Formats: sequence, structure tokens, C-alpha cells
Amino acid sequence: MNYSKESIALHLKSRGKIEIRSKVSLKTKNDLSLAYTPGVAAVCTEIGHDKTKSFTLTNRANQVAIVSDGTAILGLGNLGPEAAMPVMEGKSIIFKSFADIDAIPLCINSTDVDDIVKFCKLIEPSFGGINLEDISAPRCFEILERLENELSIPVFHDDQDGTAIVTLAAMINACRVTGRNLNELHVVINGAGAAGIAIARLLIYAEVKDVVLVDTQGAIYEGRPGMNPIKQAIARVSNRAKHKGDLQSTMTGADVFVGVSKGNIVTESMVKGMKSEPFIFAMANPTPEIMPDLAFRAGASIVGTGRSDFPNQVNNALVFPGLFKGLLKTGIKQVTPEIKMAVASSIAYSIKPTHDKLMPTAFNKKVVENIVAVISEISLNSVIAPAA
Amino acid sequence: MNYSKESIALHLKSRGKIEIRSKVSLKTKNDLSLAYTPGVAAVCTEIGHDKTKSFTLTNRANQVAIVSDGTAILGLGNLGPEAAMPVMEGKSIIFKSFADIDAIPLCINSTDVDDIVKFCKLIEPSFGGINLEDISAPRCFEILERLENELSIPVFHDDQDGTAIVTLAAMINACRVTGRNLNELHVVINGAGAAGIAIARLLIYAEVKDVVLVDTQGAIYEGRPGMNPIKQAIARVSNRAKHKGDLQSTMTGADVFVGVSKGNIVTESMVKGMKSEPFIFAMANPTPEIMPDLAFRAGASIVGTGRSDFPNQVNNALVFPGLFKGLLKTGIKQVTPEIKMAVASSIAYSIKPTHDKLMPTAFNKKVVENIVAVISEISLNSVIAPAA
Repeated sequence: MNYSKESIALHLKSRGKIEIRSKVSLKTKNDLSLAYTPGVAAVCTEIGHDKTKSFTLTNRANQVAIVSDGTAILGLGNLGPEAAMPVMEGKSIIFKSFADIDAIPLCINSTDVDDIVKFCKLIEPSFGGINLEDISAPRCFEILERLENELSIPVFHDDQDGTAIVTLAAMINACRVTGRNLNELHVVINGAGAAGIAIARLLIYAEVKDVVLVDTQGAIYEGRPGMNPIKQAIARVSNRAKHKGDLQSTMTGADVFVGVSKGNIVTESMVKGMKSEPFIFAMANPTPEIMPDLAFRAGASIVGTGRSDFPNQVNNALVFPGLFKGLLKTGIKQVTPEIKMAVASSIAYSIKPTHDKLMPTAFNKKVVENIVAVISEISLNSVIAPAA
Repeated sequence: MNYSKESIALHLKSRGKIEIRSKVSLKTKNDLSLAYTPGVAAVCTEIGHDKTKSFTLTNRANQVAIVSDGTAILGLGNLGPEAAMPVMEGKSIIFKSFADIDAIPLCINSTDVDDIVKFCKLIEPSFGGINLEDISAPRCFEILERLENELSIPVFHDDQDGTAIVTLAAMINACRVTGRNLNELHVVINGAGAAGIAIARLLIYAEVKDVVLVDTQGAIYEGRPGMNPIKQAIARVSNRAKHKGDLQSTMTGADVFVGVSKGNIVTESMVKGMKSEPFIFAMANPTPEIMPDLAFRAGASIVGTGRSDFPNQVNNALVFPGLFKGLLKTGIKQVTPEIKMAVASSIAYSIKPTHDKLMPTAFNKKVVENIVAVISEISLNSVIAPAA
């Protein structure tokens, strides 16, 4: 199937993918008097006295802003904010279809860190949460960190933690299928951008045995010259063996390959150099680092990609709808590593995985339910804990 | 009916008034591959090559941002951005119900002119137009003027020009009902904020005989001390008789009173001091400057208010849905005085008015149709003109 041609035709025909609908009737003068003036004045006054009432008297509690500057669109790179809209509209309808959340795409005309932080602070009163999207590294790390500190609503960068959570979920299920132990895995990650760094951080928190990041300069190790502060920090807690070398040499003897950068860069011989029966998560889009058939031929026991037309799609859409539903429901502000791990686990345990059905599909309603349940549980525990 | 209580109950029950809906199917893996990855990549790439395609491949061409800082909410004043949301959600569902436009409420956390201008420039790539709302004077004048110059999409401040257009429409129909001539009217406007200034500007453009603005210091005349630059400018083209004095003395002998400030400030004797059978547009919300029964008793021939529960509501909701539909359809960027006058006239001529049915209701479908038709006509003429 020619997805490109069909997709352009679909978008042209429907003129994009989202629309606004009214949740109340607007057919009579009386309807108008209640939804608008004069009735609405009393609603405004209530909120004016107590701003928290915006969460019960407006759609705010169910409303998420999807904010992007269009600098890291899918695997396409920096095409600008207008070009990011189709992705954000796609996320919006996924939010709605899978978790009944109203997500508003806001693609903005600046790539400046201060501008993006300021923008998110400006829109805070209108939203229950903010989903950052397709903002390139390393700016995305500073933006997320500043917003986590400065906003009173939850903020989540899907390309960092959405990818990290779903990758951990895939790894958990690969272990379940093959009878291996997460804590004994030696993982190599190709790509040290938003996704790579976040995956490494989460795997380290999950006590995976060792994680080595590889960028265009080769393995990241402590003291390597010319690294940005984010890479310097991750170097201190990863690559325990202080391995130096290119991707091929770094992969030698590893249990797991995670690709979140360029397609077509892993060969059969590189997979053969890994420990026997490795896991290959070749998630570059649209072209994986190695095609599944080649990876299997080279001895892989589990292969996942980012693509919906191959088995074992490792898909962020499994994460963000349920995650935000849980955050909005509980009022939890900070997406802690504990929450990320619990969400990964709840996604993994939504199904009984097999080699070629490693992950639940995005249409599996249990995924959102399980994520919301686990976040609610953490919320209850954290409320009870201080009183104990 | 207790609108306040009923309206709060409605808002609590529905948790606000808007939601997002998908315009495309999202039920199968194939749907997902077309609306999201991998198919969407081709759509992004198309727009990356030609940004104008965002108007055909996303919802942008039908999408308007309603931007407010919550400083001048209805007649309630500055209650902050959270408290402005119920009004903006109300406008959003009016946009959708009456003109099928998707309008996104964005209530923002700053009252600084530079911040608001910057904010609108940041969101430009996501929208086809911007509706400024409930931003207090005199900041609103500078914000609108700067945005008209700096944005490539149309921007409209409803509290200025929406009110001006619908007021002119009401005055046109009052003339039709009473057989009088717009150009012979002497109009007194109480209130020199967003609405008052914009009404005066439009009436002067429409060649009304004389317009006098009154603020808390009395009549505005050229050279009056302590006026902001906006008032200084309007003073030069209004109040030809250079009248000085309070509201009562200014109203003496006038044909029309327009109130866009405080309720309950016009007495029967003030109406009696006007020319015989005056028009009274007492549009303060929720309490008019004078109640209709008192105005009629004092000799008024036509009385309009801002309220939906009295006859002759002079309602901005007659303007903005059709106006934006026309702008989005034609691609016209600047809402010129010519357009404002034509829109006022097309609203007025949507019905055959009577004394107590002066204006079409917001539910009259001809209003939006007529506004769109007249803007399309202006658009065609301006395209043809330069080639002639």
C-alpha cells in the first residue's frame, strides 16, 4: 500500500483531522443565555474567586496542549511548525479516540528555549497538562526540566519519556517471552537525542545491568571530549566498562540493541557479533536500523520496530493517552521515574506476549485502563505515605 | 429564570462546553497508518516544502484562536485568564454552531502588550485567524494595531469591531424602521474603552453627522487635558461642536444614545432632554444604562440592549461567526472600515425590521450567509480593481 499517497489524499479530503464540538445544546435563546451571556457571567465570577474551579467549570481538566516547534518531526528533522501540524493533529485524535482527552495542537513559530518555556507558562491557565512534541535535543531537556519546575500542571515530552516507557515495556515483554531477566541485560542504544537519553535514564533506573549510548562519534564514555552537558551526565552512570569504539564494536557481546536514530545502519554481521539470541529494537522511522527479516536471519530472538506494518510495533501511542488520563484524573504533577516504570510494566502486562505479538495494539482498551489504574494506585500511596 | 444558578449547574455537569472530535476514522491499523505514522510523514514533507499547504492539509484554514488575558471579561472587569475561559468556550461553540468554524480558547497568563503580541505571533502557524477577546483598553488598541501589521493572518478584536459593527447594524435598522437618515444623526456614546472608541471610529467612517464620546470625566473634546493618545486622536474627528460637560448635558438634543460602559446611569429626564423619539442602545451588561420600559416612557422610539431576555438584543454573536467565515474563505487579511460597514449593512438587511424586532436573532442562518456573501464580493472587487 502506498501510505504516502493515500495519506495525502485523506488529509486533502478532510482538510486536516480535528474539529471542535459543543458539549452543550445551542438551539434556543435559552441555551444561549446559559452557555453565553448573561448566564456565563456567574461562572466567570465563581472562577474569579477560586481559580481551581476552572478544573470543574471549564474543559480544562480534560484539555492538554500539544506543543511543538517542528524541529524534530518524526524522522524528518526540522521542517518548521506548519509541517508539524499533521503529526500533532494525529496525536490529538489518538488522545481522543483512545482516552477521550481533548488535545489541542499548538505548533509555534520559535525554536528559542526561553520563548518555548514562556509560551507554555502563558497557556497554563487554559490547560490541564502539556505534551511537548518533536522538539529537538538538547533544547528539549532544558525545556522539560524548566517547565517541570515552573508549571503547576504536568508536562511530558513524548519523544523522551513516551519512547522510553514503551521501549522498557517492550524489553519487559521480550524478557517474559524468552525467560530472561531485565537486570542481566547489556543494552546498546544508538542515538543520544531526546529518545536515546531518556531510554538510557529509565533503563538505568530500572537497574538494567549496563547501558551504553552510541552517537555519531561512537560510544559515549565518561571524559569523552566535545560532549554537551546532558551527554556528560549520562556518561557518568552508563557504560560501566568505559568502552570506546564505533557502533559495531560497542554492540559486540550485547544482549539488546535499541535504535532511535538513523535507518539502515545495522548489518547482519553486527547482530551476529552480539550475544546469542539478542533483542533488536530497530525503531528509526520510517526505515528501521535493520529490516526484521535480516535481523532474524542473523540470530535475533525478538525484533521490534516503530512501524505499524511490521509485527511488534513499539509505539508511543500506547503511552501518552493513558498516561495523561492518569495524570489528569489524579492531579499528579510530576512524571517520576517510579511512574514511568509502573506505566511501562502496566503496558507490558496488558497482554500475554509471544515472539511476534510482543506488544498490545493501540486499540487494546486494557492498555489505557491499566495505565490509569497504576497511576491511581501510586497517587493513593503517595497520599497515604506522609501520614504513616 | 435564575440564569446564574442554572448556568453554573450546566457548566458543572458538562465540565465546560467544548471538546475535540476527529474528522477521520481511527478504528483500524490502516486508519492509524494513514492518519499518523508512517503515512503522515508525506503530509509533513509536503508542507515542509510549501508552508501554504498547511491551509489544505491541516485544519488550519478553518481554525481560529480566541486569545484573551481576562482583563475585561464581559462587564465584570479583570478576573484573570482562568475566569475568562467560560466566555471563550461560549464563543467557541457559537463559532461552531453558527459558522462551522473551529475556535480554540487560549486564555493567557500575562497582561503585557509585548507578551500578548509575541504570543499571537508564536501561534500564527497553527491558525487561520485570531479573535482577540476581553482585553482591556487602551492596551487592546496597540495590540490589535501591531498584530494587523505583523501577522499574515487576519486578526479581529471582537470587543472593538464586533461591537462597532453590530451597533451600526442596529442604527441602520432603527433608521429603516423610523424613516430617518444615518447621516443626520447626532450620536452620544457613553464609554471610551474598546467598544466606545471602535463604535465612534466606525460611525464617523459611515458619515454619521456627529459623534460625541463621554467618559468618566465627561465629553471628550480636542485639547481636553489628561487623555491617552487614543482619546486624543478620536477627539480630533469627533464632537464637532466641541461640547464640554457631563453625560446629561452632552445628551441634550442628541438623536441617539449608545451605552457601552456602566449600567443604571441614564435617567428618564436625560432621555427626555434628547431630540424627540430618540434611539437608545443601552448595552451595558448585565444591567443596561436604563431599563427599556423607562426609556420608552421617556419618549424613546427604539430601545436596544445587550441582553437576550429583552427585545432588540444588539449582540456581537451576529458578527464574528460570519465575519471569520468570510475572512477564512476569501483569504482577506485586513478588516477594513469598508468591510466593517458592509458587514453591518448585511446584518441589518438580513431582516425587515420592526420597532421590537430590530435585529435578526443569532439563530437566523441568513446572517452568516449574507456576511460571507458581502465579504466575498468585496474580495472579488479588490482582486479585479488593480487589473482594471
